[in-house]
Order: sequence, then C-alpha cells, then structure tokens
Amino acid sequence: MLFMNNNQPTAAILIIGNEILSGRTQDVNVQFLAKKLSDMGVSLLESRIIQDNEDQIVCSVNELRKKYTYVFTTGGIGPTHDDITSESIAKAFGVNLERNAKAIDMIKGHYKEKGKVLKDGAFSMAEIPVGAKLIKNSLSGAPGFNIENVYVFAGVPEIVQSMFYDVEKSFRKGDKFISKSIKVFVGESAIKDILRVLQEGCDGLQFGSYPFIENGEWYTTMVIRGQNSTNVEKAASKLKNKLKKNDIEFLEV
Amino acid sequence: MLFMNNNQPTAAILIIGNEILSGRTQDVNVQFLAKKLSDMGVSLLESRIIQDNEDQIVCSVNELRKKYTYVFTTGGIGPTHDDITSESIAKAFGVNLERNAKAIDMIKGHYKEKGKVLKDGAFSMAEIPVGAKLIKNSLSGAPGFNIENVYVFAGVPEIVQSMFYDVEKSFRKGDKFISKSIKVFVGESAIKDILRVLQEGCDGLQFGSYPFIENGEWYTTMVIRGQNSTNVEKAASKLKNKLKKNDIEFLEV
Repeated sequence: MLFMNNNQPTAAILIIGNEILSGRTQDVNVQFLAKKLSDMGVSLLESRIIQDNEDQIVCSVNELRKKYTYVFTTGGIGPTHDDITSESIAKAFGVNLERNAKAIDMIKGHYKEKGKVLKDGAFSMAEIPVGAKLIKNSLSGAPGFNIENVYVFAGVPEIVQSMFYDVEKSFRKGDKFISKSIKVFVGESAIKDILRVLQEGCDGLQFGSYPFIENGEWYTTMVIRGQNSTNVEKAASKLKNKLKKNDIEFLEV
Repeated sequence: MLFMNNNQPTAAILIIGNEILSGRTQDVNVQFLAKKLSDMGVSLLESRIIQDNEDQIVCSVNELRKKYTYVFTTGGIGPTHDDITSESIAKAFGVNLERNAKAIDMIKGHYKEKGKVLKDGAFSMAEIPVGAKLIKNSLSGAPGFNIENVYVFAGVPEIVQSMFYDVEKSFRKGDKFISKSIKVFVGESAIKDILRVLQEGCDGLQFGSYPFIENGEWYTTMVIRGQNSTNVEKAASKLKNKLKKNDIEFLEV
C-alpha cells in the first residue's frame, strides 16, 4: 500500500449520517481532516460514509480500528433519537454508556457562558462510553470522546474542527506530506510517458495526474507528493526539464 | 437496515482516488449520485473513498458488489500510470482486459469531432474488461463501462454526470424518496421528545434532525423522508401541529 512503512501512522475516517447518503448534505469533513492528517504525516488510507445504523457503525468501527492507527468518526452524537453513534461505539468496544459528570459540567458551563436556558434533553449528550476521554467542543458545549484509537466527533463542520484542534497534539506524527503541483497545458495522454518514466525512478513519491477542463480544452494538473521535501523538489525539477525539452507549456501552481 | 425490503434496490459508491484522501480535491460525486439514486428510489447505503491501489480496489469491489444491487465507482480510468481502476476491476471479476474496438471508435470519434490530434497514449483508455458494456462519455470520448452490477465512471464530475445519464434508464427503480424539511428556531434538545414520539408512530419514514448555526444561535432543520408521499405529508402536518402547540417557531423550507 502506498505510503506505508512500519512507523508510518495511518488513519481512516467514518462519516456517519443519513443526510450525506440521501444527498441532502455535502460532506466537507473528509477534506478538512484529510488536509490536517497530511500535514501531520499521517496517511489517510480510507474513508467511509455510512447510515445512522447500529450494525453498520459497530461493524465499520471494529473493522477500521483494527486496521489503522487512528479512526475518526463524525456525526450522530447530538441529543435526538437519530443520534446513535455513542451507544453504537460503546457496543463496538463492549462497554456501557454512562452519564459522564465532566460532560454534564461542560454542557452546563456552555449554557451558562452563553446565558441560555438549559433543556434536560441536552443531558443525553453526556452519555459517554465507560473509559472514554472527553474531547472539548468550544462551539456548543457537548463533548466528543476518544476511546482507544477511535476519535468520535460531531457532524457539524465547525464542531469537527474545534474537536480536532483539541486532540491534535496527542497524535503520533510522521513526516509531513509535501506536494508540488504543475499545471500542464496538454491533455493527460500527451504526458503519460513522461510521468511513467519519472515515477519509475522515484520510489517513495506519488505522481498524480488530474485532468481538468478550461474553456472547452482538456489540460492536466500533475501532482508530486511525498514526505521528503528534497526528493519532491528534485522530481519537480526533473519533470519541468522534461516538459521544456518536449515543448510542453506549464505553470507551477 | 433503514429503507430495506426485499424489492428495494440498494447501492454503494466507491470513490477511487489519492487526491481525495490527500485533501487536494473535494469530492462532489457522492452528492450528485446520492441525489440521483434517491430520485430513482434506490437506497444508497454506503460510500467508500479508497486509494488508487489494486488490493484496495479489488477487495472493496468484491465486498460491495455482493452486498448491494448496484455499485458505482468513480476515478482512475484515465490514460496515466496512476489510473489502475480498469485492470483492478478486471482482476476483481477474474477476467482479462482487452483493447475494445468500440471504445477505440468512441475515442477516435471524439477527437475527430473536436478537430484534435489524437495521441497514441489515449488508446490505453480503450482497455476494457472482457464482457463489459461501454458507457458513453460525451465530454472527452473515453468510455466508462458496466460489468454485472458494477458501473465504472471517470472521476471528473462533469464526466461522471454524463456517464450516469447514459445508463440511468437501465436501473431497476424503487419508489422515489420524498423529503420535507422544516427549519425550527430552537436547538435540537428542545424538540427531541416531539421527534421521538413522531418517529414511533411512523414506520417506514425517516426523521432526521440537523443542527445549524445562524448569527451565533443554534437552530435545527428537521427532515422527514420516505417513499410514500401521503405519509410524508401526514407526518409533516403532525409535526407542524405539535410545534404550534408548543409555541415553537418554524419555517417550511
């Protein structure tokens, strides 16, 4: 598998939410987390989007947590009947849910700070799997939690971000992924041989080629990605030289 | 599992692409396909995002195609070295790739129509698993393909859309999913009991509750979704009556 060695931390994301699978909501949490993990040198190897369904959550969490260093879930920890992530995660780990006193303090504290009336219904968000550590939610108070290598976040993007920032220091990091992008004003077929030859000489680097359309013409963005910035720069120079030699117009982006 | 009965067609989407997992590219294909499937009454039960990696593609395709009525893949069928979807799908089905004469005609036809010079490199996109049916790409010529219940699309959103429209008539359809959304100007905790009671009386309907923030205040969108429009309307009326009775301000959206 790409980007894997024994010391390389890996990750998977599990997006839990009927609203994504119905097409109602465009997920943006994968991209946010993907960028953050890339900057930390953690290889994101898989993401899944599943329903608010206990069997699917339990099976997916148990499969992913055994395979990857870290698993991040988003969605389903609110107070309503369709929020079943916390109890499903507890089930995946074979532990009970308990009303967590610290979580209640966090929720109360948020309402007090905002001068709002606290509804009893909010306390269901303090039901946390036994043994989990709480993750701070600076936007709406109700915490996420971390149990073993699984990090359970809310679904609202701003809350996902706030929760990620609360825990990001705790991760084992790899070397940051660096990437160089070069826009080439020809289609993919015209540069496929150049890219193939380049990839062959550069183990540990990933060469991507992404077509895009502009004013009815197909062009290509070439992306070189890796964890050793010298090697990325060297490969980019090689690529630019080859493009010049072949009279192919390009732009670094 | 939600929305499943014996006759209900189901689907999964498999997004293949390092560029999504690195955070470079925001996927938008899931939402497009999700909406289309919802309109056709096909239940989208799962999506996955994986790397351009043969093992991951083979395993995921073989797992998903056994579980769901339809599987849609996007990405990795271009001409460059990182495009390994077609050969991986062939491997998943235990068949060979072959240079498909009809695919070559499609590619040649596109270049001729656009008055462009055809590079030999483009013909690698005519390597199609034996026995697959071609899917028309009205944007850049190179076709996708369908093998058994798996539909293999390109990654570029405009091409995904063009390919979907080429095959949409061939799917077995269910009853269209209908949804009603009601914006409620209170937080989720304030309406959780109303929603729970409502859900209990309405089998076959899905009640979602989605928090959002506006001018620093947390509100909720409630979504009622199902395949019987009369039942959806009835539940929406019940909900509105309950909201009025509880003096909760709302807006149909």
